[in-house]
Amino acid sequence: MPDALPIADLADRVRAGDRRALAQAITLVESTRADHRDQAEALLATLLPFSGQGVRVGITGVPGVGKSTFIEAFGLHVIACGHKVAVLAIDPTSQRTGGSILGDKTRMELLSRETRAFIRPSPAGSTLGGVARRTREAMLLVEAAGFDVVIVETVGVGQSETAVADMVDLFLLLLPPAGGDELQGIKKGIVELADMIVVNKADGDLTNAARHAEAEYRHALALLRPANRNWPVPVLSCSALNKVGIDGIWDRINEYRRLLGHDGSIDRRRADQARAWMWNEIRENLIAAFQGDHAVRTELSALEQATAAGTVTPGAAARRLLGLFRGADR
Amino acid sequence: MPDALPIADLADRVRAGDRRALAQAITLVESTRADHRDQAEALLATLLPFSGQGVRVGITGVPGVGKSTFIEAFGLHVIACGHKVAVLAIDPTSQRTGGSILGDKTRMELLSRETRAFIRPSPAGSTLGGVARRTREAMLLVEAAGFDVVIVETVGVGQSETAVADMVDLFLLLLPPAGGDELQGIKKGIVELADMIVVNKADGDLTNAARHAEAEYRHALALLRPANRNWPVPVLSCSALNKVGIDGIWDRINEYRRLLGHDGSIDRRRADQARAWMWNEIRENLIAAFQGDHAVRTELSALEQATAAGTVTPGAAARRLLGLFRGADR
Repeated sequence: MPDALPIADLADRVRAGDRRALAQAITLVESTRADHRDQAEALLATLLPFSGQGVRVGITGVPGVGKSTFIEAFGLHVIACGHKVAVLAIDPTSQRTGGSILGDKTRMELLSRETRAFIRPSPAGSTLGGVARRTREAMLLVEAAGFDVVIVETVGVGQSETAVADMVDLFLLLLPPAGGDELQGIKKGIVELADMIVVNKADGDLTNAARHAEAEYRHALALLRPANRNWPVPVLSCSALNKVGIDGIWDRINEYRRLLGHDGSIDRRRADQARAWMWNEIRENLIAAFQGDHAVRTELSALEQATAAGTVTPGAAARRLLGLFRGADR
Repeated sequence: MPDALPIADLADRVRAGDRRALAQAITLVESTRADHRDQAEALLATLLPFSGQGVRVGITGVPGVGKSTFIEAFGLHVIACGHKVAVLAIDPTSQRTGGSILGDKTRMELLSRETRAFIRPSPAGSTLGGVARRTREAMLLVEAAGFDVVIVETVGVGQSETAVADMVDLFLLLLPPAGGDELQGIKKGIVELADMIVVNKADGDLTNAARHAEAEYRHALALLRPANRNWPVPVLSCSALNKVGIDGIWDRINEYRRLLGHDGSIDRRRADQARAWMWNEIRENLIAAFQGDHAVRTELSALEQATAAGTVTPGAAARRLLGLFRGADR
C-alpha cells in the first residue's frame, strides 16, 4: 500500500484546517482517474467520522435574483457569529477554467478574502450525477476541515436543484421581488423543494414589491403540504445589498436545526439522503454498463425510435434490449 | 407456434369490440406467468397499430372529494356525446378480490350498466411499476377495442399520480371546495402535475366555498410555470352530484386536445412517454437483477445500514456492491 502514508498525512492536514491540503483533497475527490478514485475513497473513509457536524444549506434562485450578493452577505454574517463557512457549487454546465475560478472569487470578493471562508467552484463534469457526487464528497471534506456552515449553491440548470436539495439540511429558494407573470420563470417543482423562501432586493424602489411578493408566496404556500409537519415553510424577505434581514434568516435556520434536531428529523433526513445516494450510484452505474454494452448498442437507437413512434410497445423494446444485455455479457 | 391462432383470434375479437374478449385480453396482459407474458406481447404487437386514437385522461383527488361520482357523471356525459368510455385504475395497494370488483361496479352503478362503458379495477401487484405497466397495456387494448375516451384513475397512494400523469394526455386534479389548512392534505408535487384543476361539490351550502377555492387556486397557479406554454392550467368548478359544469370540463378537454394536436404537442408527449416507459422498464429490470443477485444479497443490508448510519460513504458502498454484482455474474 504505497499510498497509505500520504493519504493518512493528507487527512491529518485536512483535519488541522490546512486550506491547501483541503483544496488538494477536493481535487483528488474530483479526479476521474481510477487510481485517484482509490485514494479518494481511502481519504473519505478516514475523514468520514469527522464530518457531519456542519449546518448544510442549499441555495438556489433564478438568474438576476442576486444570489452571489446574498451568499456573500450571508457568509459574512455567519462568520461574524463565530462560524467557519464553506461555499460549494453544483453547475453541470461548468467547464472549469482559470477564468471561472477567478469568476467565483471576484463575484464574492469580500467573502473570498476571509480566512474563515472557503469558496470552491463547481467541479466540471458532463453528468449531473457525477458533478453532484463530487460536491457531496467535497462537503464531507470541508466539514472534516472544521467548516461548520456549508452552503451548496446551484445555478438552477436541469435537475441540479433536486441534487442540491438531496444533500442539504435546509434548501433555501431565493426569489425576486416580483409577482404574477414574472414569477412564471420559476421551474416546476422548485417551490416544493424549498424549506425556506427568501425574497431578495427588499430595498429602494423595490421594497413594496418585495413585501407584496412575500405575502403572495405565503398565500400560495398554504396550498402545498410542507415536507415536515412541524416546519411550515417560512417566507422571509431581505436586502442582501444593504445587509438587512440576513440575521433573521440565520436565526430561522438555527431554529429549524434545533427543531429538527430535537425530534430526530435531521438524522433521518441525512440517513435517507445517504441511502438514496448509494442507490443512485448503483442505478447510474448499472445504466451506464447497459448503455455501453456492445450488443445493446447495435439495436438501442432503432428500438428507441420505434418505441417513440408507437410501432413497438415499450415493454417489448425493453425486453429485447435486456435479452441482448444478458446474452452478451453473462 | 401453437398460440399464434388463438392470439390472432383474440385480437380480432378485441378489435370487434367484444367485451368478453377484451376482459380476457386484459387478464392475459396482467398475468405474471412467463408463457402468458409471451402471449401478451404477441397480442399487444398485433393490436398496437389500432390503439392510440383515444383521448387519455388521468384523474386524481384526495379521498372524499367525490371522485367516483365525478367519473360517473363525466363518463355518462361523454357517452351522451357519442363516445365510448373506458375507466381503468391504478392502485398499488389493491389485492384484487371479488369484493373489490363489485366495489368498483357499485360505486359507479349507472356507468357500469352502460354498454358503451367499460370499467376495469386496478390490477393487483406489489410494485407500482408492475401495476402501472399493466394499466398502460390495458389502455392500448381498450383503445383497440374502440373506446375513444380512456379515464385512468389513481387512488393517490405513493407515486401513483406520477405514474398516471406519465401515461395520459391530460391529468386532471379534483379538489374539494376548501382552502387554507384543509388544502394541506394535497401531496407535494401533485398540483404541478395537473393540466387541469376542477373544484368539485360546487353545490348547496358549499357553492360559495367552491367559488372561493377556485379563485384561490387560480391565484396560486400563477406562481407555477405551466408544462406547456400554450396551455395555462385552467381552474374550473363543478357539481358532479347535480351534473353541473361537467359539459364545460369536457369542452375544455377537447379544446386542449385540439390545441396540443395542432402544434404536435400531443404526439411529442406520447413519444416522450413511450421512451420514458421503455427506460423505466429497463431500469427496474436491472435493479431487480441486482437486488436478486446472490453475492449482492450477502452484504447489501449491512452496507445499506452502514451508509445510513454514516460509517461508510454511499460511493464506497455502491462500489463494493457493484463489484460483487459483476464478480458474481459475469
